[in-house]
Amino acid sequence: MKRNIITGTGICIPPFIRKNEDFINSTFYNEDGVAINKPAAQIIEDFRKITGIEERRYADPSLNASSMAAIAAEEAIRASGIDRETIDQIIVAHNYGDLVPGSFQPDTVPSLASRVKFRLGIRNPSCVAYDVLFGCPGWLQGLIQADCFIKAGSASRCLIIGTETLSRIIDDSDRDSMIFADGAGAAILETSEVGDRNQGIMSTAARSDCGDETFFIGLGTSYSPEARGCGTGYIKMKGRKVYEYAMKHVPEAMKDCLDKSGATIGDLKMVFIHQANEKMDEGILKAFYKLYGIDKMPENIMPMSIHWLGNSSVATVPTLYHLVKQQQVEGFDLQEGDLIMFASVGAGMNINAVCYRY
Amino acid sequence: MKRNIITGTGICIPPFIRKNEDFINSTFYNEDGVAINKPAAQIIEDFRKITGIEERRYADPSLNASSMAAIAAEEAIRASGIDRETIDQIIVAHNYGDLVPGSFQPDTVPSLASRVKFRLGIRNPSCVAYDVLFGCPGWLQGLIQADCFIKAGSASRCLIIGTETLSRIIDDSDRDSMIFADGAGAAILETSEVGDRNQGIMSTAARSDCGDETFFIGLGTSYSPEARGCGTGYIKMKGRKVYEYAMKHVPEAMKDCLDKSGATIGDLKMVFIHQANEKMDEGILKAFYKLYGIDKMPENIMPMSIHWLGNSSVATVPTLYHLVKQQQVEGFDLQEGDLIMFASVGAGMNINAVCYRY
Repeated sequence: MKRNIITGTGICIPPFIRKNEDFINSTFYNEDGVAINKPAAQIIEDFRKITGIEERRYADPSLNASSMAAIAAEEAIRASGIDRETIDQIIVAHNYGDLVPGSFQPDTVPSLASRVKFRLGIRNPSCVAYDVLFGCPGWLQGLIQADCFIKAGSASRCLIIGTETLSRIIDDSDRDSMIFADGAGAAILETSEVGDRNQGIMSTAARSDCGDETFFIGLGTSYSPEARGCGTGYIKMKGRKVYEYAMKHVPEAMKDCLDKSGATIGDLKMVFIHQANEKMDEGILKAFYKLYGIDKMPENIMPMSIHWLGNSSVATVPTLYHLVKQQQVEGFDLQEGDLIMFASVGAGMNINAVCYRY
Repeated sequence: MKRNIITGTGICIPPFIRKNEDFINSTFYNEDGVAINKPAAQIIEDFRKITGIEERRYADPSLNASSMAAIAAEEAIRASGIDRETIDQIIVAHNYGDLVPGSFQPDTVPSLASRVKFRLGIRNPSCVAYDVLFGCPGWLQGLIQADCFIKAGSASRCLIIGTETLSRIIDDSDRDSMIFADGAGAAILETSEVGDRNQGIMSTAARSDCGDETFFIGLGTSYSPEARGCGTGYIKMKGRKVYEYAMKHVPEAMKDCLDKSGATIGDLKMVFIHQANEKMDEGILKAFYKLYGIDKMPENIMPMSIHWLGNSSVATVPTLYHLVKQQQVEGFDLQEGDLIMFASVGAGMNINAVCYRY
């Protein structure tokens, strides 16, 4: 029997570290343009307690989304041991294309996938390169699409990358700006005999909720009175609404995916979830276990990297998976045959999940 | 036997007409910022002779890419007679997201597919909505992806839309700005028994060339000396290089697709090709027939709408197909059972083709 397995992963964690204390001289405003009546130190500490974020990485000016994507992809190709000319599809998930620092003009033509293929020096014209936009769950959706393409017989080996430079689209006067970070993660997915490990993608699930939720995350004006009405858009989030939405629907999608896999909740060893807010992720996991009548979720089920990486959008899930595989997340040790789940939620609003036997 | 068939199409041709003579007061510069030493009237007439474009449509300020997409989608849904809540996937191809006139800041979050789903009022969360970026061939690539998803069993009914407002990203000082236009086209693709007509998608082909070709089309600075270096990017094209690339590789991809379908060149009734330049399209078709040893291509093989619609990027192919189906292109009359081909080329550089039995 054949399944699609991840044979290599790679990441780009950009070098520039911005710590929480680096925001100490910021003036934060609410969405009505009124300065928040709290010292910055207090705002930052409240932020840390909820989100778990202590520092985050930003791309330096020599990097952009497509160059970080290529760095992550090089590592994934090397790790998988494949000949890059045998890749059938390059799928790049992002949200804002390449951004020149300070320009706020997303550059999406040619697609980032074309730029990555150019940087990788892949000459095979049958290697089709395209981008997918699906909010933060974009990388995982790329994986789901690659799984479909392989099942349909139109590909047998795909490179899926998530890359983003959110630091270049944030509004410094909005405390939510502290959430966002830059980075890239990549994986090679290919068809293979399952073998004794029974490995590969077991099941997938995805949903899009496009009622009022559609505009929970999107471009909006600066909160700063000076910059309001300048016409430039910045990434904006209705945090409370996103939180409520995610708490309600992510556990359902995860359950849908796990149930489709035929495995039981007890089989599940780790959940690699999109990281925008540590408290929210804990809440989601608890609610997910509650759906199976389990009041206390297991220890060491949810590896986290948000403390030092922030929310790098489409890059969070592949980056986290790569770090755990490399035993770089303390207390988390993947074993052959482990059943794991990827899950994500973000702008759209979109949610997806994949059950995977390691 | 089952195949995937197009059961409904729709378009949005925006109302504002910009005629060639409306460019008469323009000053056109070359890429070095030197004014072209010819009267505007002469430049416009030369342009018309090569491209075939006499006028083009622009969205008025009340429209943007996602609203035009929704208008086209409404028509496609109506034409197909389906219940919109049964759509499994909404795939929106574009290149620059939603653009506010004068802002030059593509808005891509949430994805246009989410915005379209919102506008269509579709509540079914299992209807997954995402965008694909693949240059001008994006709509056709969305069709190819939908075909794969249906074959893989993860969808049975998809809505594929191409939409673009290129008028909002053009550089008025560049004569190539006269090529670009706005519009949207949509189709419903669903699985069906082929029946007596043997209808549906017969074969597909796609390629990405990402060597030096990668940057033949992309954002660049204004050609006007006053606007150079302002930091704003405009759509730019190395026209000669695009022409040479397309002439060489599009016929090959079309032949690849036709040969995969099992049909012969004599069976082919019409080619719906992406329209950026009439002379180029004629050259491509001639070269395609030459690959089969045919020196003279048939009459009435290539319907055109470029004269009055210009190049609306991802919207050109679905718009043209819709117009011919509605018998709005003189001399072209589709008959049940006709074998037709869709083909496109654009930024990436990407090329694709689909053979389809009507």
